[in-house]
Amino acid sequence: MPRYKLLIEYDGTPFAGWQRQAGFSSVQGAIEQAVLGLTGETITLKGAGRTDAGVHATGQVAHLDLIRDWRETVVRDGLNAHLRPQPVTILQAWQVDARFDSRFSALGRHYLYRIIDRRAPLSLEHARAWHSRERLDVEAMNVAAGLLIGRHDFTTFRSAHCQSRSPLKTLDRLEATRTGDLIEIRASARSFLHNQVRSMVGTLERVGRGKWAPEDVGAALAATDRSRCGPVAPPWGLYLTQVDYR
Amino acid sequence: MPRYKLLIEYDGTPFAGWQRQAGFSSVQGAIEQAVLGLTGETITLKGAGRTDAGVHATGQVAHLDLIRDWRETVVRDGLNAHLRPQPVTILQAWQVDARFDSRFSALGRHYLYRIIDRRAPLSLEHARAWHSRERLDVEAMNVAAGLLIGRHDFTTFRSAHCQSRSPLKTLDRLEATRTGDLIEIRASARSFLHNQVRSMVGTLERVGRGKWAPEDVGAALAATDRSRCGPVAPPWGLYLTQVDYR
Repeated sequence: MPRYKLLIEYDGTPFAGWQRQAGFSSVQGAIEQAVLGLTGETITLKGAGRTDAGVHATGQVAHLDLIRDWRETVVRDGLNAHLRPQPVTILQAWQVDARFDSRFSALGRHYLYRIIDRRAPLSLEHARAWHSRERLDVEAMNVAAGLLIGRHDFTTFRSAHCQSRSPLKTLDRLEATRTGDLIEIRASARSFLHNQVRSMVGTLERVGRGKWAPEDVGAALAATDRSRCGPVAPPWGLYLTQVDYR
Repeated sequence: MPRYKLLIEYDGTPFAGWQRQAGFSSVQGAIEQAVLGLTGETITLKGAGRTDAGVHATGQVAHLDLIRDWRETVVRDGLNAHLRPQPVTILQAWQVDARFDSRFSALGRHYLYRIIDRRAPLSLEHARAWHSRERLDVEAMNVAAGLLIGRHDFTTFRSAHCQSRSPLKTLDRLEATRTGDLIEIRASARSFLHNQVRSMVGTLERVGRGKWAPEDVGAALAATDRSRCGPVAPPWGLYLTQVDYR
């Protein structure tokens, strides 16, 4: 039974999230349907990151097992044909060792969060970035971000629905850069808690607007208290960009 | 009667083009409706470039006259409020001299054409770029582009519907650059013929695929014969990015 690894891009806007849910369209469900259409096989697709409704991906990874042996290019092109017109693309398909697991073999996950801070609303970037009408202080945001990097109890930045066994995580990177009115925040870790990136970004935005001092973010982290988190940033600015494997 | 200059961004996807047409939604019509909603005045908006259906703008310019004197920020923010949820944004509004004319005062127009050349279809960039399944040779495209720069009779690259008095135009810039699988082609001129950018890009794509030699583009230009043009590139890769004034 050959196992396949898929590299996946999607526009999260029309989906209720990655995960299959009865009565809602999901990215997982869309790809599972495409596999059924192409191969006649009913499979369960397992993703590296279960992105929420509205969250995008340029580098999601998932795996599946097929009974028949299919050529990698046929899997990629065939699934893409069956996925149209839904905004989900199989960028690449590889046959991999049966021990490969998109979720448990992952050594690192990388997210991008895009904010556009300008007075006027977004047209071309609607549902592709978070719009802030206030100019944000990126330097202050990076001072605050620096306080979150490292191994910490991230309870403050964890959704109440998080199923992770432990709130202890090591954040390897959290960094904001500005290009004109586009602010790109890049976050990297072996794994994240549920809503962790959006919780951290929503808190950094408070700092960028001058509502919080950078030290307030350190204090919120130390409090390990969900009620100390800033507002959770909206999903449409978030992109799962890369998952690392050995 | 104060005159206002507007800087405009839009996603061209849902519109039948810039120009108002009975029974179709247009960018011009959407803004004229917003002006009516904000001010109660029925005006005619005049744009610097009449973009086709599906063509985007990050820097379209237009002007209008109002009876009452409105503050610039009120014009911008008020029109944006009335334009929601349509993907049209007034980035800036200025009160200008009555001799200012968005179309006839323009000294330069700048377009961007985006191509993504990869095997897999586009999800996040759907309707935002032209998808080429074949890898394009950007170097060869730039050799061909160089043959089009300068003052020429551009009859070959002109739509049959073009209303310009003369096919003689001076092309100041036509240049392709690659970043990963994104090819950005930038075109600048004082003014363009109807469909000129898309006609040139469609022809350059032939060169990028190796179907035409760069010299064939020079020969097509010299022929001043519309039938010698390559296929016109689709509208969704094109962006009007800037209009220059004194």
